[in-house]
Order: sequence, then structure tokens, then C-alpha cells
Amino acid sequence: MTDDSKRLDQLCVNTIRMLAVDMVEKAKSGHPGLPLGAAPMAYVLWSRFLRHNPANPKWADRDRFILSAGHGSALLYALLFMAGYDLPLDALRNFRQWESPTPGHPEYGLTPGVEATTGPLGQGFAMGTGMAVAERFLADSFNKPDLKIVDHYTYALVSDGDLMEGVASEAASLAGTLGLGKLIYLYDDNGISIEGSTALAFTEDVSRRFQAYGWQVIRVADGNDLDSIETAINNARAEKDKPSLVMVKTHIGFGSPKEDSASAHGEPLGPEAVKATRENFGWPLEEAFHVPEEALEHARLALQRGREFEDDWTGLLDKYREEHPAEADRFVRQMKGELPEGWEKALPVFDAAAGGLATREASGKVLNALAGVLPNLLGGSADLAPSNKTYQNGFADIGSGQSGARNVHFGVREHAMGAMVNGMNLHGGVIPYGGTFLVFADYVRPSLRLAALMNVPSVFVFTHDSLGVGEDGPTHQPIEQVASLRAIPNFTVIRPAEANETAAAWKSAMESSGPVALILTRQKLPTLDEKKYGVAAGAARGAYVLADTEGTPDMLLMATGSEVSLVLEARERLLSHGVKARVVSMPSWEIFEAQDQAYRDTVIPPQVRTRLAVEAGSTMGWRRWVGDGGRVIGVDRFGASAPGSQVLANYGFTVDNVVQTALSLTGK
Amino acid sequence: MTDDSKRLDQLCVNTIRMLAVDMVEKAKSGHPGLPLGAAPMAYVLWSRFLRHNPANPKWADRDRFILSAGHGSALLYALLFMAGYDLPLDALRNFRQWESPTPGHPEYGLTPGVEATTGPLGQGFAMGTGMAVAERFLADSFNKPDLKIVDHYTYALVSDGDLMEGVASEAASLAGTLGLGKLIYLYDDNGISIEGSTALAFTEDVSRRFQAYGWQVIRVADGNDLDSIETAINNARAEKDKPSLVMVKTHIGFGSPKEDSASAHGEPLGPEAVKATRENFGWPLEEAFHVPEEALEHARLALQRGREFEDDWTGLLDKYREEHPAEADRFVRQMKGELPEGWEKALPVFDAAAGGLATREASGKVLNALAGVLPNLLGGSADLAPSNKTYQNGFADIGSGQSGARNVHFGVREHAMGAMVNGMNLHGGVIPYGGTFLVFADYVRPSLRLAALMNVPSVFVFTHDSLGVGEDGPTHQPIEQVASLRAIPNFTVIRPAEANETAAAWKSAMESSGPVALILTRQKLPTLDEKKYGVAAGAARGAYVLADTEGTPDMLLMATGSEVSLVLEARERLLSHGVKARVVSMPSWEIFEAQDQAYRDTVIPPQVRTRLAVEAGSTMGWRRWVGDGGRVIGVDRFGASAPGSQVLANYGFTVDNVVQTALSLTGK
Repeated sequence: MTDDSKRLDQLCVNTIRMLAVDMVEKAKSGHPGLPLGAAPMAYVLWSRFLRHNPANPKWADRDRFILSAGHGSALLYALLFMAGYDLPLDALRNFRQWESPTPGHPEYGLTPGVEATTGPLGQGFAMGTGMAVAERFLADSFNKPDLKIVDHYTYALVSDGDLMEGVASEAASLAGTLGLGKLIYLYDDNGISIEGSTALAFTEDVSRRFQAYGWQVIRVADGNDLDSIETAINNARAEKDKPSLVMVKTHIGFGSPKEDSASAHGEPLGPEAVKATRENFGWPLEEAFHVPEEALEHARLALQRGREFEDDWTGLLDKYREEHPAEADRFVRQMKGELPEGWEKALPVFDAAAGGLATREASGKVLNALAGVLPNLLGGSADLAPSNKTYQNGFADIGSGQSGARNVHFGVREHAMGAMVNGMNLHGGVIPYGGTFLVFADYVRPSLRLAALMNVPSVFVFTHDSLGVGEDGPTHQPIEQVASLRAIPNFTVIRPAEANETAAAWKSAMESSGPVALILTRQKLPTLDEKKYGVAAGAARGAYVLADTEGTPDMLLMATGSEVSLVLEARERLLSHGVKARVVSMPSWEIFEAQDQAYRDTVIPPQVRTRLAVEAGSTMGWRRWVGDGGRVIGVDRFGASAPGSQVLANYGFTVDNVVQTALSLTGK
Repeated sequence: MTDDSKRLDQLCVNTIRMLAVDMVEKAKSGHPGLPLGAAPMAYVLWSRFLRHNPANPKWADRDRFILSAGHGSALLYALLFMAGYDLPLDALRNFRQWESPTPGHPEYGLTPGVEATTGPLGQGFAMGTGMAVAERFLADSFNKPDLKIVDHYTYALVSDGDLMEGVASEAASLAGTLGLGKLIYLYDDNGISIEGSTALAFTEDVSRRFQAYGWQVIRVADGNDLDSIETAINNARAEKDKPSLVMVKTHIGFGSPKEDSASAHGEPLGPEAVKATRENFGWPLEEAFHVPEEALEHARLALQRGREFEDDWTGLLDKYREEHPAEADRFVRQMKGELPEGWEKALPVFDAAAGGLATREASGKVLNALAGVLPNLLGGSADLAPSNKTYQNGFADIGSGQSGARNVHFGVREHAMGAMVNGMNLHGGVIPYGGTFLVFADYVRPSLRLAALMNVPSVFVFTHDSLGVGEDGPTHQPIEQVASLRAIPNFTVIRPAEANETAAAWKSAMESSGPVALILTRQKLPTLDEKKYGVAAGAARGAYVLADTEGTPDMLLMATGSEVSLVLEARERLLSHGVKARVVSMPSWEIFEAQDQAYRDTVIPPQVRTRLAVEAGSTMGWRRWVGDGGRVIGVDRFGASAPGSQVLANYGFTVDNVVQTALSLTGK
């Protein structure tokens, strides 16, 4: 490497640094410390390794890069701008301002080249693991000798905070188990967190820990030494059977008066310190957002390289298509997120049966029916597959080395599972899902929120959905979980009443652009007659009239899931009391809300004010459906350990109680 | 050790095993696998080490034992019964039945000798870490040379599942950092989880990982070898500066036909396998719940030992009291959970100020005022102390080796923080709290739920509570968090409107028997005139009339937190439109609900049906307060990155919008 090219590299690094400093300074908020310290490793990765095409951020075989330490967003925006993504300098000037594509933390879908929404620590780490699983799955599915149309790395830049988070520990352990050799994380090891030195709370031997997980660990002693970083990344890429952690010793706030200080975190440097930093880097003292022309020109070579990368790959895909036309088509369709034509014909129709089956059982049957027509269905459970019914029978396990593998054993790691499912979606090409008990949706919650915020169609199978869990007791009986999930914006909750509604729920999930949670019972429920009740069509609209009366009903009985069969029975009994009740099955509030007002009014007529809702969970939120004249039979205290039918009965989930409550409401 | 004593030990071990098998079999549900494999280590710990007094499960200086693998509850109940706790054999026969003290997973407060509610994996591991911190804090606070009135161990039995959970990883790392030498965990290393061999998802080198955290790791090759287990625990106790993990190789379902099989998990053995197991252990084939007299007699020696342990300690405390009477009194009071007389006088009164201060700032001042009168206030933040204002100024950090330390640096480990705060409460003697951003309450959620279920008074300081967070954007702006917290049964949420309400909130928290979350702003809010508004008295009742009109109001303006000042201003403007609005400040729904109906009706008169609620968060749940005639100004979509005041304004949180909405509601 010539002296001049070294000088140019350094100029680029400092441009990235100072752009970040200026962004934070102008916005009067943000984190200048990370960009100053981590710019060299980011620059080396982006300029010497990253196979991406800034002109086409969605190129299928690009390397993925995640800034898991999302608070350093200014670094990422500087990188994207320098590389030539559709992110002009003005966007950097508008850092953290209303409707700017440069929000405080990177947001997927808002900014070209941002692969994942990060900021909540540990999530990016775990999402990257999911991406690497997706990459390997697709490579195994499609690649042929000499025709590797799926062959890219997943990189992330991670911080102390990421490595302290449990979700990252979970993902790291699983990444090691799976031997994800194309996962390479650069650790910005700066020894400083918000409260001060990491020595206060984080003295563990990170290297040893990651080796214990089965990772290759490589150290870079000087985070400003570009060539050492290059060597380290080369070594990481050379290891095919293990993920790599490249531990890069850096100085937070490098080159500024706040170097190595916690105050470089989370606040602008301030005018004085900015000036000193400019001087230090030989930067013009007055000009904010200074971009040396030769630095930009050099960085923008990424555009040319990117075009070549993608052209080469397109040539490869063309060749692949010649030899394997059907698979090539399937690959392209999958990467677009398209489902194969007629897939929905695979959805089973369940015969009416009084004994019925648990909705988790029905879900398992639907999933296995879909497995036959959706070759990219990929997922599993957090060690509860036999209970969640999430296993695709007859297919091998990811990591087993067998072909056609598509079952993931996530281990007892609900949180990483959620983040990994999100990461698989972000990667694209697969239809990922994850399962656990509904009560443990709490463990997954930060990832559920991110799925909603990113609007990715992650499917979560949450079984054992109420007091009906029974003997396992209150630790395992969800109460507030369904309400809490409904509270998440842009998140669809579906609690089907029986087997055919369960099939409809899966259909909705497969067609959804955002995340969906399926809420399923442990216990058996009667299966309704699809022909008589039109369950599938009704459930597809979120709520529908399941059983009606002649003329205007005296009252509405509204329920979801296991309580629908209860109110159906109550309706019959109420008739003998002279009360004509309509039964509304309401598997999904969110889907129902998306229907037009006319439809909603035909299901819940505004003039029928006597309404009783029954759901074996928190009453929170139901008041809006039942109104002042209504009542809710729900649960606002914790459950109890006893056989499920007994617990349900003792908490008021009996036909008797529904009938008595309805009678008292109607005044009869 | 004589042959006969070996035989007797084995008999005791097998009694524990078979009691567990019979419990599960009779209940037709539960986990027989863990008790069969782990009974020997549990027996050795309980019979040779555990300093406890079955006749007084609340003895202050007892060793704590947690069954973190709560699904093995039958093991714990067998141990408690055998040791002579107030848990009769009939309770074991009623395993997992309605109102029995032997629920499916151990529940704190329900069963004598159960130190923590477990079942959600990883929680017990992290709660134990909290207990060990409390033990050390109290030892540092009270012990004198030769007068160690606080000197006990925290033991737990942990499983593969515990070690896979992120919350346990977080706690393990912090336990290592803090060098908690009196924390000793026995790992039931049986190689089997629900989906099959742990090789499917958990191939990490656990020993190396824990060494990396700074733990001592000791291996026991044969989990049936009582003496090896004893040696290992002795070695664990000998290490004073590191926590110890004793890895005990066991066989799930040992001695049954399901040995080493995943089917020993989560389901009864079944009659055939039970019979074979009985034969294997030389147990009577027909008699369920068989307890050999000599085994019981031997195990019940725990009662005599326990009395001696406690008597010795009481003697020590008496001696301590003679030399340090005031400290002895304080110790006893603290262990009872009593606050020092007149403590509440320390609560500051804030002067009215239009500029005001953020409620997080006010909280920091209140906390520091309390720190002066509550010597056992112990807590901190998950690396956000400067933002959460949770630091007790002038006091040292736990782990620093300095005296009077009471600030905990939890690191970026929200989940472990929550569980550890719970564990500190379970230990007793301390007033623990933990802080993070409200949006990251999601990370803590499983521990919040457990705090509510156990009814322990954990205090959570959640700051940066709305869109007002501003530039950090939607990843950091809570929307659904307050609603989701309100949905948790037995959990109190308080969102104070300004500084004096914040002091009242802390008072409520200190007096609460259950968990409390304080929801605090990042941004400044006007401080109300305490004398004029009676803020403290009002806030103490959850909701109160802050500003009224003469006669019956035309409408109610209800708000919490930062929106109270908004509706106060709107009220003035509405007067000029001829609308007489009453302002109700509603910091806590839960506390308000606990007031009598008469009071509630004076605050929210049933006849005033025109109601407008304003809260910068999810509208979920508000409908019950505003009724069919009311409206809610809230947020049911994600936020945006921009200056906080701008985001709030763009989402409708302006006096203008409140006034316009109120006018349209009243038809004026």
C-alpha cells in the first residue's frame, strides 16, 4: 500500500468521523463517541470487504451489515452517504429531524441501506444471527457446485452494551452451536459505557466467553490500524465453520477532548470540543459537513464495485437459470416474498367435531400442510416444539447437515428466537416463524415490538393461551399477554376459536405484511361446521356473526378463542329464557378494525347496546367493544394451579355464568 | 462414613425420588425427570450444608435455596416435607390441585420454605444473584469482627434451560464482576431438554463460559456420588471471591425406563414405568407416597439442626445487641420491612415553578432525600443512571469495596436487573430499586410479572416516558408500555404530573406491599403549587380533582403525567368558550381503583358523561374511564425522531387540539 493510498484512507476515515460529529452537533443530540472510535473498522469493512451495491440496496446476494450499536447511527449515515446510497448530504444535515431519513437510531424501511432497525441493544446482534441462518438455508436450498447464487456474509458492528444483553448471549450460543461461519461481528471494544468504565459492571473475559460458545475470536490491539483490521477480517472470513468475533480495541470519542470518557456517549461534543477535534484531524475549523472531494471520489468507488458485484452475480444467476430454470424462478419469487400460486389450496378444512381438537393441534396440522407447498417455511420453537406443534414433520433440523433441513431448534432462548425470526425476514427469501408458550411472549417482547416497527411479517405461534393451561399454574397461565400484544401498534393478534379459524389465521399470517401472533389453546375445543358457519370467510375479516337470531338481536355475545364455544352454548340456553343473542366470534381486533365501517356495523350493530364479551384474559381494552351498556367476563388477577377445566370454571368461564350475566344485563 | 449411613442416605434420596414420581403420577401432570436425576445433589445440599430451620422458614440468617428449574417442583416439595416444613404428606398427595400449597411451579408466599416463585426459566438464577447482593450489603452494613449476624449462602439448583436464558447470562456476568463468593449454584447437567438432546441447540462449553464470567467451576462426574457432591460444595464454599457453579452430570429420569430421554420431561412416567422404577429402587410396588420411617426420621434431624442453628444465631444477635443496640434494632426493623419512624418527613416539597423540572429530575431529588433517611435503599440503573437519575450521590458503588456502598451498576442488563431487584426483596432487609428507560420495560417484563405474582415491593424507575423523548426516535419512544404495565395484575403504575406528584409517587412506592413502576418524563414540566392544589394528598389516592369549576362541570379533562399541564391550560381556554371543565389528574389507575366508590364518584361524577382523556401513549384501557360519551387523545402508532416538543405537537398533544376536541365533544 502506497503512502498516498494510506493518506487517502485516513482522509476517508476522518471524513466519516467529522460528518458524524457535525451531525450530532447540528442536531444537538446523538452519540459522537462511537463514530469517532469505530470509523476505522467500519471504513475497512466497507471499503475492502463489503460486497454491496449502493445503487441497489435490495440486491439479493449483497453482504448484510448491521449497526447493532444503533446509537452510533451517525456513523452508518456517514458510511451510506460516502458509499453513494440515495442519502444526500442534506439528509445528514437533517439528522434527527422530523421526516428526515436520518432518525436517531437506524430504521429499516426508512433509509436505503439500513438493514435492520437497531437501538434497543442486543437486537441487532441476534437479528444478524437470523440473517446468517437464512443465508445458509437458502444456500443449501439453491446453490449448485460452481453456481453459488447465495453466498454472502453477515457483518455487524457491536458494542459493550450489545454483549451485555441477554438476547445477544442467547443468539451467540446458538450461532456457535450452528457453526455459522459467515457471521462476522466487529466488537467496538472501547471500555466505556454510559455510567463510566465497563470495569464497573462488565469485567468478564469476552474472548473466553465467545470461545466457549464456539466462536473464533480475533483481537485487534489498535483500532486505528487499518491493516490489522483488514488482516483480522480476512482471518474471520477464512474460518468457515465458526462465527467470528473481531475484538477491536478502540477509544470512544477518539481525537476529541472527550476521548475515553463516558461523556462522549449520548451528547454532542459541544462547540469547544468540536473545534479541538477539527484541529486534531486537520479539518477546516469553520465548515461543518466538510467532505474532501478526493475522499468522496474514493469512497464512491463503491458504486462501481457494486455494479460489478451485482453484474457478476446476475450473470451467475442467468447461467443458473439456464441449467435450473424452475429453481431460478422459485429463488426470485421467494426473494420477492411471493407465495407459490395456489398455495392456499393446501390449507386443510377440518370436519365438525364436538370433541374437536386443541387449536395448537390444528395449527400443527395447518403448518404441516403448508410445509408441503411452501419450501421456504423455516422455523421452530424455543424448546417447546412438542407442545407448540411447530415441528415440520419429515424435514431435517437446521444444523444437522442433512439436506432439506428447515426445523430450527432455538433452545430455551425465546428472546433470541424472536430477534432471529425478524432477522430471517429482513434477509428475505424465507417464511420464518417461532413458537413458545403465550406467557413467555413476555420474554420475546422487545423483538415483537421491533417486528412491528420494522413491519416484517414474523409469525409467532403462542400456545397454552389461558387459565386452561391448568396444572402448570400462574407462572404459566397468561392473563395480560393478549391485551399487551394488542397494545403494540402495527401488530396483529389472532386468537382462533377452533380448527377452521386456525387455518384462516395461518392464511392471514401468510398474507400479512407485518407481524402476526397466533394465540392457541392447550385444551381441546369443538370444531365448527365450516359449511354451516362460514368460519374461514368470517375469520378472515377479524370478526363475524357466527350464530344469529331472527330480527334485531336482544344482545351480542362476543368472544375469542376457547370462549366462543362457551358463548355458543350460552346462546342456546338464553333462547329458552326468551333472550335472542347474536354470537360474534372475534379472532382478531386488528383485522376487524381494518374492515370498512359498513361491515363492522353489520357485525356489531351500533344500536344493540347490550353486549357481553367473554375472554379468558385481561379485560383491558374490551370496554371499547362492549360500551357503557356492556359487560366483560375476563380475568384481572393471576391464575391458579389445578386442572384447567376447574380453573376456568372457578374463574367464571362456565355456560352458567355467561347465561346469568347475560340475563342480568338484559334485566330478565 | 459407615455403610449403614450410606444406606440411609440412599434411602432418603430414593424416598425423595419416589415421592416426586408419585406426586406427578397422581396429579397426572408434572416433571418426574428432574427429581429422579437431581435428588442426590439436592439431598447432599440439604442434609449436609443448608443452614435453615424448617420450623421457622423466615429466620433471617438462613441459607437461601432456590429451585430455579421450577418445573422440578415435586423435588422441592419432597425436600420440604422430608425436612419437616409445615407441608404435610397430604399436600404432596394434592400436588397441582386447587388451593393446594403444592402448585405446579413453586410459588413464593404460598408454601413455607419456598424462597422464590420459579418456572419461567432463568428467573431463579437471577433472583439468587440479587439475594447474594442483599446478603453482602447487609453483612457489610451490620457485621462486626466476631459478630457476623449476616452470614449465609445463596444456593440454587439450575438446569440447562436456565443457563440458555439470557437473563441468567446477564446475572452470571454481573455476579462474576461483583465476585459474589457466597453464591453457589448446582447445575443439573443432564443433557436433555424438551425437544431432545441438548446437543440440538446447546453445545457451548458451559464451564469455560462461566470461567469467563469470573466464576469458579467445579465438576462432579457422577451425580449419584454423594461424597463427590459434598466435596464439590465444600470447594465451592472455600472460594470466597468468586461465585461457584457446580456442574453435576446427571441422568434425567434416573432409575426409570425413561432415563436419559426427553419424555421424562413434562409428563408422568405412566403406571408401567412407575412400576419398573419402584422395582429398580426396591420400593413397595403398590404403596404410593411410601415414606420409610427411618428415612423420615433421618431427614427430620433438620428440625433439630435448624433449632440449633437459629438458637446459636439468636445468641449471637443478643450479644450483638448488647454491644450495638441501635444497629441491632435497625437490623431487626429492616428485616421486618419496617421503615424508620418519620422517614416521610424527608420527602421534599417542590416550589411552584412555571419552568419546572422533569419528573425524572424530581425523582432523583426525592431518591436522594430518601437516601438520607433510608440506610437500606439499594439500587441503580441498567447503565442509564445519569439519565434515570437513580444514583444515590455521596454513596459508594456496590463491588467497589468501599464502605456504605449502595449504588448498583447493573450494566446494560435490564432483565437481570429486574430479577435481581426481586431477589433482593425476597431476601429482605433492603429497599431495592432499578431504573431504565420506559421503552426497555419490555426487556424487564418477565421479572415485572414475577414481582406482581410474588407480591414483592420492587420499585422500578422508568424514565423517558413518551414521544417527548424526541430525537432518539421510535425505538426509544414508549407507546404501548404504560398500557401494557397496567394490564399486569397486582402491579401499580404511577405516572406523576410534576415534581410534587413525583414525591407522592415515591411515598406510595415505599408504602406499597407489591411492585410499583414510576413513569417519568425526560422533559421539563411545570411544578404545581402544593398548597394551592393539594397535590400530595390527591396523588396519594391515585386520582383527584386538580382544578374545578363552580357547580357541576360541563365536562371532565382527565390526564396523567406530562399531559396534565396541557389540560390545565386547555381548561383555562375552554372557560373563555363558556365550557366549564374539571381537570382530574390521574397518576395511578390502580391506586384510584383501590379507593372507595364514594371517593371515586366525587372525582369522576357518574353523571358527567362528557369526558376527554389525554395521555401520550396507547389509548388502550381509557375507554372504561371516559365511557361512550367520551374521547381519548392518545397514540396508537409508533413515534418519530425529531425534537420532543415537535413530535408531541405533531401527534396532537397541543392545547389547541385538546381545546378543539373538547369543544367538539361538548357540541360548542
